[in-house]
Amino acid sequence: MERKAIDLTTVLGVIFAFALITGAIVTGGSLGSFFNLPSVLIVILGTIAVTAVSFAGSELKATPSLINKAVFRTISDPVQIGTQMIELSELARKNGPLALEQRLPELQGNRFLSKAVGLIVDGIPGDDIDQVLTSEISADHSRNKRAISIIQRSAEVAPAMGLIGTLVGLVQMLANLEDPSTIGPAMAVALLTTFYGAVLGTMLLTPLAGKLDRNANEENLTKRIYAVGAASIARQENPRRLEMLLNTILPPEKRINYFE
Amino acid sequence: MERKAIDLTTVLGVIFAFALITGAIVTGGSLGSFFNLPSVLIVILGTIAVTAVSFAGSELKATPSLINKAVFRTISDPVQIGTQMIELSELARKNGPLALEQRLPELQGNRFLSKAVGLIVDGIPGDDIDQVLTSEISADHSRNKRAISIIQRSAEVAPAMGLIGTLVGLVQMLANLEDPSTIGPAMAVALLTTFYGAVLGTMLLTPLAGKLDRNANEENLTKRIYAVGAASIARQENPRRLEMLLNTILPPEKRINYFE
Amino acid sequence: MERKAIDLTTVLGVIFAFALITGAIVTGGSLGSFFNLPSVLIVILGTIAVTAVSFAGSELKATPSLINKAVFRTISDPVQIGTQMIELSELARKNGPLALEQRLPELQGNRFLSKAVGLIVDGIPGDDIDQVLTSEISADHSRNKRAISIIQRSAEVAPAMGLIGTLVGLVQMLANLEDPSTIGPAMAVALLTTFYGAVLGTMLLTPLAGKLDRNANEENLTKRIYAVGAASIARQENPRRLEMLLNTILPPEKRINYFE
Amino acid sequence: MERKAIDLTTVLGVIFAFALITGAIVTGGSLGSFFNLPSVLIVILGTIAVTAVSFAGSELKATPSLINKAVFRTISDPVQIGTQMIELSELARKNGPLALEQRLPELQGNRFLSKAVGLIVDGIPGDDIDQVLTSEISADHSRNKRAISIIQRSAEVAPAMGLIGTLVGLVQMLANLEDPSTIGPAMAVALLTTFYGAVLGTMLLTPLAGKLDRNANEENLTKRIYAVGAASIARQENPRRLEMLLNTILPPEKRINYFE
Amino acid sequence: MERKAIDLTTVLGVIFAFALITGAIVTGGSLGSFFNLPSVLIVILGTIAVTAVSFAGSELKATPSLINKAVFRTISDPVQIGTQMIELSELARKNGPLALEQRLPELQGNRFLSKAVGLIVDGIPGDDIDQVLTSEISADHSRNKRAISIIQRSAEVAPAMGLIGTLVGLVQMLANLEDPSTIGPAMAVALLTTFYGAVLGTMLLTPLAGKLDRNANEENLTKRIYAVGAASIARQENPRRLEMLLNTILPPEKRINYFE
Repeated sequence: MERKAIDLTTVLGVIFAFALITGAIVTGGSLGSFFNLPSVLIVILGTIAVTAVSFAGSELKATPSLINKAVFRTISDPVQIGTQMIELSELARKNGPLALEQRLPELQGNRFLSKAVGLIVDGIPGDDIDQVLTSEISADHSRNKRAISIIQRSAEVAPAMGLIGTLVGLVQMLANLEDPSTIGPAMAVALLTTFYGAVLGTMLLTPLAGKLDRNANEENLTKRIYAVGAASIARQENPRRLEMLLNTILPPEKRINYFE
Repeated sequence: MERKAIDLTTVLGVIFAFALITGAIVTGGSLGSFFNLPSVLIVILGTIAVTAVSFAGSELKATPSLINKAVFRTISDPVQIGTQMIELSELARKNGPLALEQRLPELQGNRFLSKAVGLIVDGIPGDDIDQVLTSEISADHSRNKRAISIIQRSAEVAPAMGLIGTLVGLVQMLANLEDPSTIGPAMAVALLTTFYGAVLGTMLLTPLAGKLDRNANEENLTKRIYAVGAASIARQENPRRLEMLLNTILPPEKRINYFE
Repeated sequence: MERKAIDLTTVLGVIFAFALITGAIVTGGSLGSFFNLPSVLIVILGTIAVTAVSFAGSELKATPSLINKAVFRTISDPVQIGTQMIELSELARKNGPLALEQRLPELQGNRFLSKAVGLIVDGIPGDDIDQVLTSEISADHSRNKRAISIIQRSAEVAPAMGLIGTLVGLVQMLANLEDPSTIGPAMAVALLTTFYGAVLGTMLLTPLAGKLDRNANEENLTKRIYAVGAASIARQENPRRLEMLLNTILPPEKRINYFE
Repeated sequence: MERKAIDLTTVLGVIFAFALITGAIVTGGSLGSFFNLPSVLIVILGTIAVTAVSFAGSELKATPSLINKAVFRTISDPVQIGTQMIELSELARKNGPLALEQRLPELQGNRFLSKAVGLIVDGIPGDDIDQVLTSEISADHSRNKRAISIIQRSAEVAPAMGLIGTLVGLVQMLANLEDPSTIGPAMAVALLTTFYGAVLGTMLLTPLAGKLDRNANEENLTKRIYAVGAASIARQENPRRLEMLLNTILPPEKRINYFE
Repeated sequence: MERKAIDLTTVLGVIFAFALITGAIVTGGSLGSFFNLPSVLIVILGTIAVTAVSFAGSELKATPSLINKAVFRTISDPVQIGTQMIELSELARKNGPLALEQRLPELQGNRFLSKAVGLIVDGIPGDDIDQVLTSEISADHSRNKRAISIIQRSAEVAPAMGLIGTLVGLVQMLANLEDPSTIGPAMAVALLTTFYGAVLGTMLLTPLAGKLDRNANEENLTKRIYAVGAASIARQENPRRLEMLLNTILPPEKRINYFE
């Protein structure tokens, strides 16, 4: 009931914003005067280096897969997921919890759900399943938040590196003022690092961190539905009671109406 | 007891602030020198695009109806709403809870109240009504806060996009300093994006987010009056006790004096 | 035991700060070059208009009485108020709670205290008096905080409006650079809105919001003394016990020593 | 076990920082060009006036004694204080709590400790002593925090007053641009208020507020040791148990090893 | 199971970021024009002096060892540490808790673990061990946070000192504008303190504080594993139960599978 798809608002939003800036540059002059290799290196590599100091190598390695998560989002519909749990609940009520074992292979793609169903099949009591899954959800969530903090940190570093690069350029320009005709172009180059830092921070890193934070909260809700469902099935509760339970954690417009 | 009306402070405040700025522009020169299409596009479309990255399409779709809510506010007087609940409570006490069924049609326009009365008519116990409505109020409130965060986010993005646009203009101007007579107008155009970003953020988006936040808190209070009233009616409590309960959550100048 | 008096630190602080700035302006030139009607309108009316958007008309109407509260403060000495409550407690213990009725007329000026004594005379039990007054204190306090947030919001808006006005002036000046001799005066006028915004925010609105916040906390303490006292009298407790209770919520240097 | 001493990091830190700036001024020119009486008055008197608005006269009067507290710190060694309490505990266990009365005169210098011992000698039960002292500690702490907020507020006001002074100077300079040779010196004077505001805020007020906050937390710990000790003595507990209790609130490197 | 190692992301990140800036300086001019002794002294010594004011000498002495901790990190693998505790648990279950005494010498390098094992060998009950170690962990953690706040404070002071230094340079330059050819170099020197402050704050102190904060949280987790393990051993619980307990506090990818 979950599927991967390109996250359109992420991809189109970023592309469109960059296209706007590129358009403004092209209509007002040449793109070439906005490219300066040392400035690019200071802002991009500098941001990576300074951000890296605050984290451990093992944490940084997770960053590409994190960015991947913002671009290729797991689309999960709470109603479908809740309905799936109620179907499993009915199956378990009719044929006994062990009947869920035959459904395990088709759940392989969903690590969390297959683990939850595995616990039911193993005959773990409902309260223990609730505790194990809740502790896993909370651990996953704080790990996600921690990974997102890498992007948030880099969004703060980028404009600061841009400012440092501009200060380097300004000091160099001011120390060599012999030829007034070079002041303009030199200052233009100096401002480029501020520009790169602002673009990187405002148009890429900050919104990316916002989207990842949003997705982490959504993933949290999805997993809570699985956990509530699995605990209810293990307690062999009435599926109607499960529906009622799920509806208290779902947003109003996403209520399940399985039995009506 | 609720009605839609234009929110005068929203509409007049925004119009008056923009009129002041327009007046200052006109008295000091021509309006034309304050309009630059690329700058408008960078700030307005750029703000939309960058804000969109942090949210999902389904969330963004709710934004126009959100802005609508700030312009056409639901005026609800806590005293009238509380009085209405006490009247329903008296009716239910005299003729039994089922007597409320005949009042349902006239409550159609009020989704929350008609749901609350429907629960009473269905004979749901007071504690369950309390729980169901409280969980719905809390879900509605956090959904409102989430929607408002889109406007808050865009209020932060707008000035940043204005700065990026100004940096583009400054770099272009500095890279081509041949003719000193063009410096002034070029810099004026460059400053326009900063101006647009500041106006959009300070005079439109930030106050709008503030008003929406205020309205969400008011809506929350209104719904709590309905929920407290419905639970009290279902528990078949004395209407006088309901009045006392409502007065503890109402502000002092909005106390109900139905029985005196 | 409460009296209204001009709040000297508010009035003298603001007057002195404005006198300092006026002095600096006069010694360095003429006051006239610091007055510009469009700038005054943009900053003052603009701040009012933009602040108004975030609130409802009924809330805004309370602002003048709020400012009045910062200028004419209710001076209340916790020791005097506590002593007053202990005297009432002794009177009630000697002659019975109804004896307080004859004191009601002289308490008319104090809405909260006369309500508290009225509840005792009506024979409401101590725990109920405690609950009613505590809920009223908390409602009053959050209403105060909400009203103060109007001033806080305007303190943030004023410098932003100043910046917007300056941007208008700068763009107008840069778009018409023909006569270099006008650059200076034009820029001086442009800077005036930034100056007005900074003065309004830093020297008037922010300190006013701070004083109102401080007074709201003091009012809260005063009312808690009344509430603790009234509940104790209604419970017909020993006045010595009331003294001990009051001393736990009073600051050490404001302890009551009525019985020693 | 407590003694007053000059707080070396406060005094040397401030002196050294000001010496550095003075040195930089002297090596690059004359001290005279950095002194401007109107600028000094705007920043220093203006900061005092604006800060005063947010507080009451009685609170402001406490400021000099507060600054005194940052310069002449009460040095208190938790280990010595804890050991002192264990000695008193042993004395009380051997000769009865009343034996502590003869120690009262030598504790006169320490208001809090002599009050705590007085309560024991008066035969107040341990739980009541605990409650009385804990409420006093909490009241003292919040009073300290409130007093520190005066310094914190002034640390925010100083740079803002500096900016306002600079705006006054800039507007005056720009309005009278006839003689270009005066631009430099006029702008230098205008910048002086920004300089004064930054120095006052960054190098004096902010670090002072930090030190006072730190001292308030240390004083809090010291008083908690006294309170825990006094309650334990009044309960006539074993001094070894007191040592164990104290070691749970002391930092690891400050543990007491009285009985080993 | 713990070992010291150079923290590669700290060292390489800082070196790489500084190399980038140095490269940009060298390619655009000479390194010499970026060195100015008074500016270096104002920023580095000034930051130290101003930061020192807010702390006590004893706290400042801990700073070098703190920086050392960011460069030479204690690498500790939660899985290895957990496995070690389960092995000790099995040993204690087979041969009795006293058998752990022979393992004490090899644990000397690990202060916390050897203390924990010492408490078990001394026959302290499990609940008391839990309480003692938990209170020590919490005290250590708040001491760490307090030490880190020194670095955080200095990261805020550095850019402010840079700004003050630049204001000194600007005022000196503007007061002596006779020779226009000196304006550029003088302003370059003035900007150097801003540059130093930004580099020190952004590229060194802020990321260092971030890394130290991260390490303190990791150390906290490691010590919690020791404490949970020691309490479980002292309670003579089944080692399988200990494994389950540890897995609830370990991140999902760091789960222990000792018995499978």
